[in-house]
Amino acid sequence: MSWKRSERLVDMTHYLLNHPREIIPLSFFTERYQAAKSSISEDLAIVKEIFSRKGIGDLMTIPGAAGGVRFFVSVKEEDVKLFVKELLAMIGRPDRLLPGGYLYMADIVGNPKIMDKVGQLFAAKFGRADIDAVMTVATKGIPLAFATARYLSVPVVIVRRDSKITEGSTVSINYVSGSAKRIQTMVLSKKSLKEGSRVLIVDDFMKAGGTINGMISLLKEFQATYAGICVLAEVENVKERLVDQYLSVIKITKIDEKNKKIEVEEGNFFQFGE
Amino acid sequence: MSWKRSERLVDMTHYLLNHPREIIPLSFFTERYQAAKSSISEDLAIVKEIFSRKGIGDLMTIPGAAGGVRFFVSVKEEDVKLFVKELLAMIGRPDRLLPGGYLYMADIVGNPKIMDKVGQLFAAKFGRADIDAVMTVATKGIPLAFATARYLSVPVVIVRRDSKITEGSTVSINYVSGSAKRIQTMVLSKKSLKEGSRVLIVDDFMKAGGTINGMISLLKEFQATYAGICVLAEVENVKERLVDQYLSVIKITKIDEKNKKIEVEEGNFFQFGE
Repeated sequence: MSWKRSERLVDMTHYLLNHPREIIPLSFFTERYQAAKSSISEDLAIVKEIFSRKGIGDLMTIPGAAGGVRFFVSVKEEDVKLFVKELLAMIGRPDRLLPGGYLYMADIVGNPKIMDKVGQLFAAKFGRADIDAVMTVATKGIPLAFATARYLSVPVVIVRRDSKITEGSTVSINYVSGSAKRIQTMVLSKKSLKEGSRVLIVDDFMKAGGTINGMISLLKEFQATYAGICVLAEVENVKERLVDQYLSVIKITKIDEKNKKIEVEEGNFFQFGE
Repeated sequence: MSWKRSERLVDMTHYLLNHPREIIPLSFFTERYQAAKSSISEDLAIVKEIFSRKGIGDLMTIPGAAGGVRFFVSVKEEDVKLFVKELLAMIGRPDRLLPGGYLYMADIVGNPKIMDKVGQLFAAKFGRADIDAVMTVATKGIPLAFATARYLSVPVVIVRRDSKITEGSTVSINYVSGSAKRIQTMVLSKKSLKEGSRVLIVDDFMKAGGTINGMISLLKEFQATYAGICVLAEVENVKERLVDQYLSVIKITKIDEKNKKIEVEEGNFFQFGE
């Protein structure tokens, strides 16, 4: 059964969106649509143009016999500016303040649209890097880690605070939490990460960076390395930052419990190099 | 700037896939593409045909002045059969057996492609129902809950086993775990669920159903109700099942620790009514 161009474009768009970073040979499409290579190339040129125009992603063409296309998610700076502005308004709401100066974030972390957008930002920055897995720590980092991993086509590795029988044998480390200076434990199932993996670390929140530092120590136990660190929110004015290179979407500059004020601003996303 | 049909189709496909279940007025598209209503209707007919042919989803047209389109995710039975078959082969591998007859599932739960597919199945069955949120319990249900919620355009509500300071005031209940007959606690932040919500309960694993029963009790505290129960894997041969109506993708029929054999088969997905 042969397909019309209009039909191919709909299916091709869906297919590419669902297979980010994978190398798709042109022959896959010529067979799928019973169409000539030249027609498929023209289709892909249209998809590429629109993906670029709307800030959906980059379609990279790989020439040669083993060639094909790869879709990398991207973002448009103006869209990100708008999204971050909305996020700042949401997070700055005084009713978010909890006793002790903590912020209620469950509604943000529980919103798939927001998680998806943030995951897209992280994947846009790190999509071209050599990454085998996304790592996070249970519980609140999980949605963001999955949103990111979906755009990178890699698995998620979830570190826990406690060992569970359903994890099998585990590797555990002790680390010092940066802000409270308490000794804590982190556990990762032995099976869950291959030796030598390149990992993107993702979390919802970073104060001094103790938890992220703990994940870095854990990676060493697996002879693994990190390709980058991404957090949704960082807290400024931390005396001793344990982590130096990271990407943040928003920055919490002040929490004034007494006057019920939260001050937030853009994170380092726009200053962050590729 | 006016758009060609081929260009509109690429962007429209992306837009619809990212806005499941939302009512999108035709005027949104006529303005976005500077095109006549008749052209947009023709575009949508093409998208509808391909979405149906490839089992991507149903495009529902809402006639009248306030009309528009709604995209509901769907699945093709033959694709689901194939997917479940692959999943059964993965889960039936003897190296998954842990001491005590537990199964290692972290690789399945950590795979965004599998979680996405399962979420699509759940959303295909419950997409037309009146659902305000997806509920799950930390930790392993979270990826599946998000994958489902993304296809339903609703938030995720995460129940915890312990209360955290960052949750604010909480409601907690005690429940009896079905298999171990132990009393356990479940906690949900007061802010995280509106009174009267209709909730889809999602989890990775169900034995007797104690955890799910606990979530149902918790819903009552919020004057909320459940629209359905979806689990990735159910365990058969449970003496006393605490939950009667649920959807499962796979069924674990036997775990033979001594001979290192796991027997798995299709869940009730194909028998489950809409």
